[in-house]
Amino acid sequence: MVRLGLIGCGRIGRVHADSITVHPRAELARVVDPFESSAREVGEKFAAPWSTDVEAVIDDPAIDAVVVASPTPTHVDLLIRAVRTGKAVLCEKPIDLDIARVDACSAEIGALTDRVMLGFNRRFDPSFADIRSRVEAGEIGTLEQLTIISRDPAPPPATYVATSGGLFRDMTIHDFDMARFFLGDVVEVSASGANLVSSEIAEAGDIDTAVVVLRGAGGALCSITNSRRAAFGYDQRLEAFGARGMLTAGNQLPTSVRFSGADSTEVAPPYHNFFLDRYTPAYRAELDAFVTGVEPGSTFSPGFADGRAALVLADAANESLRTGASVKVGP
Amino acid sequence: MVRLGLIGCGRIGRVHADSITVHPRAELARVVDPFESSAREVGEKFAAPWSTDVEAVIDDPAIDAVVVASPTPTHVDLLIRAVRTGKAVLCEKPIDLDIARVDACSAEIGALTDRVMLGFNRRFDPSFADIRSRVEAGEIGTLEQLTIISRDPAPPPATYVATSGGLFRDMTIHDFDMARFFLGDVVEVSASGANLVSSEIAEAGDIDTAVVVLRGAGGALCSITNSRRAAFGYDQRLEAFGARGMLTAGNQLPTSVRFSGADSTEVAPPYHNFFLDRYTPAYRAELDAFVTGVEPGSTFSPGFADGRAALVLADAANESLRTGASVKVGP
Amino acid sequence: MVRLGLIGCGRIGRVHADSITVHPRAELARVVDPFESSAREVGEKFAAPWSTDVEAVIDDPAIDAVVVASPTPTHVDLLIRAVRTGKAVLCEKPIDLDIARVDACSAEIGALTDRVMLGFNRRFDPSFADIRSRVEAGEIGTLEQLTIISRDPAPPPATYVATSGGLFRDMTIHDFDMARFFLGDVVEVSASGANLVSSEIAEAGDIDTAVVVLRGAGGALCSITNSRRAAFGYDQRLEAFGARGMLTAGNQLPTSVRFSGADSTEVAPPYHNFFLDRYTPAYRAELDAFVTGVEPGSTFSPGFADGRAALVLADAANESLRTGASVKVGP
Amino acid sequence: MVRLGLIGCGRIGRVHADSITVHPRAELARVVDPFESSAREVGEKFAAPWSTDVEAVIDDPAIDAVVVASPTPTHVDLLIRAVRTGKAVLCEKPIDLDIARVDACSAEIGALTDRVMLGFNRRFDPSFADIRSRVEAGEIGTLEQLTIISRDPAPPPATYVATSGGLFRDMTIHDFDMARFFLGDVVEVSASGANLVSSEIAEAGDIDTAVVVLRGAGGALCSITNSRRAAFGYDQRLEAFGARGMLTAGNQLPTSVRFSGADSTEVAPPYHNFFLDRYTPAYRAELDAFVTGVEPGSTFSPGFADGRAALVLADAANESLRTGASVKVGP
Repeated sequence: MVRLGLIGCGRIGRVHADSITVHPRAELARVVDPFESSAREVGEKFAAPWSTDVEAVIDDPAIDAVVVASPTPTHVDLLIRAVRTGKAVLCEKPIDLDIARVDACSAEIGALTDRVMLGFNRRFDPSFADIRSRVEAGEIGTLEQLTIISRDPAPPPATYVATSGGLFRDMTIHDFDMARFFLGDVVEVSASGANLVSSEIAEAGDIDTAVVVLRGAGGALCSITNSRRAAFGYDQRLEAFGARGMLTAGNQLPTSVRFSGADSTEVAPPYHNFFLDRYTPAYRAELDAFVTGVEPGSTFSPGFADGRAALVLADAANESLRTGASVKVGP
Repeated sequence: MVRLGLIGCGRIGRVHADSITVHPRAELARVVDPFESSAREVGEKFAAPWSTDVEAVIDDPAIDAVVVASPTPTHVDLLIRAVRTGKAVLCEKPIDLDIARVDACSAEIGALTDRVMLGFNRRFDPSFADIRSRVEAGEIGTLEQLTIISRDPAPPPATYVATSGGLFRDMTIHDFDMARFFLGDVVEVSASGANLVSSEIAEAGDIDTAVVVLRGAGGALCSITNSRRAAFGYDQRLEAFGARGMLTAGNQLPTSVRFSGADSTEVAPPYHNFFLDRYTPAYRAELDAFVTGVEPGSTFSPGFADGRAALVLADAANESLRTGASVKVGP
Repeated sequence: MVRLGLIGCGRIGRVHADSITVHPRAELARVVDPFESSAREVGEKFAAPWSTDVEAVIDDPAIDAVVVASPTPTHVDLLIRAVRTGKAVLCEKPIDLDIARVDACSAEIGALTDRVMLGFNRRFDPSFADIRSRVEAGEIGTLEQLTIISRDPAPPPATYVATSGGLFRDMTIHDFDMARFFLGDVVEVSASGANLVSSEIAEAGDIDTAVVVLRGAGGALCSITNSRRAAFGYDQRLEAFGARGMLTAGNQLPTSVRFSGADSTEVAPPYHNFFLDRYTPAYRAELDAFVTGVEPGSTFSPGFADGRAALVLADAANESLRTGASVKVGP
Repeated sequence: MVRLGLIGCGRIGRVHADSITVHPRAELARVVDPFESSAREVGEKFAAPWSTDVEAVIDDPAIDAVVVASPTPTHVDLLIRAVRTGKAVLCEKPIDLDIARVDACSAEIGALTDRVMLGFNRRFDPSFADIRSRVEAGEIGTLEQLTIISRDPAPPPATYVATSGGLFRDMTIHDFDMARFFLGDVVEVSASGANLVSSEIAEAGDIDTAVVVLRGAGGALCSITNSRRAAFGYDQRLEAFGARGMLTAGNQLPTSVRFSGADSTEVAPPYHNFFLDRYTPAYRAELDAFVTGVEPGSTFSPGFADGRAALVLADAANESLRTGASVKVGP
């Protein structure tokens, strides 16, 4: 059994608590959150000891691994402290909004970055992972174009936008990682953005609509289409096009029911509303990969370097947005 | 060029006139209808000579073949006269509502039944024909179950019902032929019926809803589901299930457009409303098969015997409905 | 919390153990199985006390409710003993293969049949349940036709067939219940069967392929299409057709991935292979309904009478198969 | 009746000859092609007078309108001559590869540009046209993103590439027009290209793979994804995303047949292979719009200005490709 401590009992922390609880080789050893009510609620719900004090996890030698699900500004500090006590860390994305701080963290812990897994949950989505495996196996020949459509159901609250780091570092970062999952290194970024959804987002100086084009080191092109709002639910699609064919993953429906009537046919229900519903199996598979990675002789993927690389692409997209020109990205 | 005469300028006659006109090896030599306005209208629209007099077609030695699209009670007489002048005949279904009259016709013309093709247009539907070919080629192994769903968009007028011969001889007859197209000889018929759609149909002594189960000589089972009304359009589906897999043909849409919004997703438009839209390619392909069959060295399929056999199944279904027992059908 | 005892640690018993474990208001108080290795394995896996002795569950006053997942011949005895100790019972289908024994059971426990819920898991399938709710709400108007297609992926072992009670009482019984779920009382049964899949099944005197037509008290017709084998996986579909439209539930896929290549397009993976994959959410929802039903002021649905009624239809189908005539079913 | 002359009897000329022949208010008055064999073949097939001499069409006062389906370099000259004789012109795209020549043509004929309709056939595709109408009607609220995927089944011969004007002016020009059909004026173009499909295309100095991002005057973003080769057939899809929902048009299949077997399910046949199959209804509807536009009191759409505007976008895309920066496009 792998004994896990959970830091952060918000929405995403609860998802991890649930995944840990149902995992056959994992045990939820302790949950912490500075808000006592959150810590208590999650602790009681999942029958785990709880406290408001992060040291209760960091300093507990019986805890093997830590899930860092606290606010982004705390990630680097907690990550450093945890790996220094010998613990493995599953860190929610992004590592930090500031690439300089990410690089300082890397310099500080050196080889211990190997002990960090990044929470890019979509790599573990059964449909996306299946496409990735089949592309790797050569089913569509050389990958030439990757098309990612990624739209949230509704914009976040204005207060969140202010500290989110902007669309590219907050939301598109998942898509940048997905692009790297398929293309490997990305060498060029060209971004277009617009304000079409929310005046609050515009007032906060951010965009809410974007198309980003990436070029992989191997020559493949990738387009990412984003919006902060989709009337029909969480829009999460991917299409890998190659010399010998195409693999697509469409949106997913809660049931297989279709209605046909006088005005329309084959009517399906709305898509899953958001990531908690859409990516439940992905979060479970991600936690499984983390637990497996903690076990001797294993490594973590995606790792610290993947977290850094996605942030580099987000920064390049911001630069391209500002300059109107494509931005080369170094190795 | 094959020179064709058309007898009957109603709805289905116009379909044939259109198919003949666009066929590269066919010429519409004359159209006739006892109603002068109908004959003139079709003749002028398709640039063909017209008259009210059926002899103008039957007796014209320059006409190679006749399409009989007149009311059912006239079929047998016209068919006999036409084949006796050496013409080939494409006769709309059914040959007649009365099996005794069909058998008398057969006795009267003997081997000339070979000159008759029956207008079971659905055999020429590209989707159904494709499934038939693939089943014959062994793609699903031995055929074990055939599922036919066949519903009209709306009940016919009460006046039509009175002379239609009833659901089984008027509407299901297409499905009986489709069953024979896949199963070959049918040896047993079991029918269930109900009055759920139209009180007028009930008053005329007919049913409007049915499920018929057939057993093929080779052992396969076939179910036919009928209704005289489908709110969402013409419901025409078929499923062939075998030892190694299944081939299905779903309903067809006029466009590939889908709408997704707050309340529903992937919404398609209504299906084709009725046979003129749904089976346009089938009617064209049927006419092509007829034209090809007229050419030397060819034969017609489906032929007179197929028209008779479908009627035998309709009669058996009526008997089963009356007795509540399955009915054996001879060879 | 509802404390549950589980009797029977085979395949379906494990499904229930899992559902109980993840249910927030249920506790797995004890598992029993006459095979020590099975009892121990399930007990250890789900962290519950185990024993080989059924009395350990029946006689434990701290246990509120029992899940009977033992072989069919034991159901009646266990059910009677359990309800007499005041426990609620979730009994796997069928109650028994012999209607006389079912009626004797009912006579013996009288009003205590109210304490029994029947394990017709498909009523709780999210897609089928959604269609049922929408039909009840009038979305398609009066229900006129119900089409059930239900095929297993592969025939059971010959040893199982010998004691299964035959296709109708073993497999179709789920579909009979589904028909009743939608149509209410069924008044007429007409069955056709064939041996197309397995010579072993034929030698055991059973059929492996069937079409059954039912008539509901309200006039609606239902067809059930069964096969003991489907090359492409577990084939579980339902279609409710009414005056104003149609609701369908298609087969379900493990991912949303589709492949398009030179020879074919939109290729999906095989369907779920069998009930453990296809109906996982249904089993969870069924257990939830049972736990809720145990709570004060609640009743169970489907209940003992539903279990009996499905068996009556199976017996009627066998009689129709033997006589070739439709069979009336009393109220 | 509108009397039409056809100039150019190649592949696309034959499509127009067919559309004219089946149009109820159009007559194919003459076909011409400098290659006698082509002119004769088309003339005989469609029962129209033919000649090798373009003047036979241009100078015939009985001809009302001309379809220009000759090679691109001849378009401007023929168009000028035809409109000066009072004829209306349906001109295949592009007007010319050289924007200066297009502008010179416009200057030369002045208001007679109103007599020219451009052959952007995709505007008349029933699915795309339906989406356009519904977007205009407000069904998805404000249009925010347009996603066009447009891939040819196979690269053209090297000899064609050399004179084609390049991917953007030859192939993407249809997509530029489609973007303008939905977005109106486009104000910014950003293009990314790659050589992944054909070394011959690379040697000819052109790209074979591209993603182009456009910004409309109203703020909406459009992405166009192109490839010169798609293993699974002609890939022609469009998605309009707005504040209240999304309308999509997927690829189209020749039949509704699906196969399910042991290794895969719901397998469809390959898509239509190329434009002659995919866009047959669009070419018919385009010809109908032209015939209607010839009639008094009508105007043509798309017109000369639309042909010019698409070419401007192609030139801007080429500039963006060269500079790596987005290019502003004037009004």
